[in-house]
Amino acid sequence: MAEYENVAKQFVEFYYNSFDSDRKTLAGLYVSPASEAPYKERLVNMAVQRDNSMLTFESASSLGATAIVEKLSGLPFQKVKHQVSTLDAQPTVEGGVIILITGQLLVDEEQRPMNFSQTFQLMKDASGQYFVFNDIFKLVFG
Amino acid sequence: MAEYENVAKQFVEFYYNSFDSDRKTLAGLYVSPASEAPYKERLVNMAVQRDNSMLTFESASSLGATAIVEKLSGLPFQKVKHQVSTLDAQPTVEGGVIILITGQLLVDEEQRPMNFSQTFQLMKDASGQYFVFNDIFKLVFG
Repeated sequence: MAEYENVAKQFVEFYYNSFDSDRKTLAGLYVSPASEAPYKERLVNMAVQRDNSMLTFESASSLGATAIVEKLSGLPFQKVKHQVSTLDAQPTVEGGVIILITGQLLVDEEQRPMNFSQTFQLMKDASGQYFVFNDIFKLVFG
Repeated sequence: MAEYENVAKQFVEFYYNSFDSDRKTLAGLYVSPASEAPYKERLVNMAVQRDNSMLTFESASSLGATAIVEKLSGLPFQKVKHQVSTLDAQPTVEGGVIILITGQLLVDEEQRPMNFSQTFQLMKDASGQYFVFNDIFKLVFG
């Protein structure tokens, strides 16, 4: 298995396990500029702030780890279980990895699973650790 | 509308119109190293070849414009019609744009639409034109 596939697989497993057990623990996967000042300075001239994670959840946008975890923690369900059906990954620039997941999720006592699709782009921070740079989540009806 | 949203919307409309009318015309949206030698030289030291588009179609991988268009042209249907249900986009590094599309498609005389999800990452080439760097397509059953 290529390294990017391994990274994608491990990330996805960790992400949904964390999401389903305690959404607040996802904070460590996203970044915000304030928490990484030296890294920010290196990148200050780039058009996009590399150290500012983006979430688009059902077409609503959040920027930075704090806002993202606030959004995810505030979703109106107590229990949630993600089931990954398919996972495909490709390498991107600068050691990044792009991932498309399709799957189903169950919330609270609901018996009918909902289909979802989610795409992530992981990038490496200055220390070589992966973080979530792009995260787009969408329920699929049809 | 932010520029990346505009780019995403125009690209998606053009992409599926081209796909549904003549898949071979998609060749211009993907790139291969051989066709852009000077650009390749600039990027030769990067881990990922920026000028080599990637397609993962139903978990099968193709690399470079020629292989990608061969794959898409060879798909076993004559007529196809994509209907976009949702489109979400985010900016990425170096002026790139990441897009998640969910939608439905009809092939040939089939009456039941199939759900699909597709993610693209567009990047700019040396002349500032967008091309498809990452393309992951997946049918959604459920």
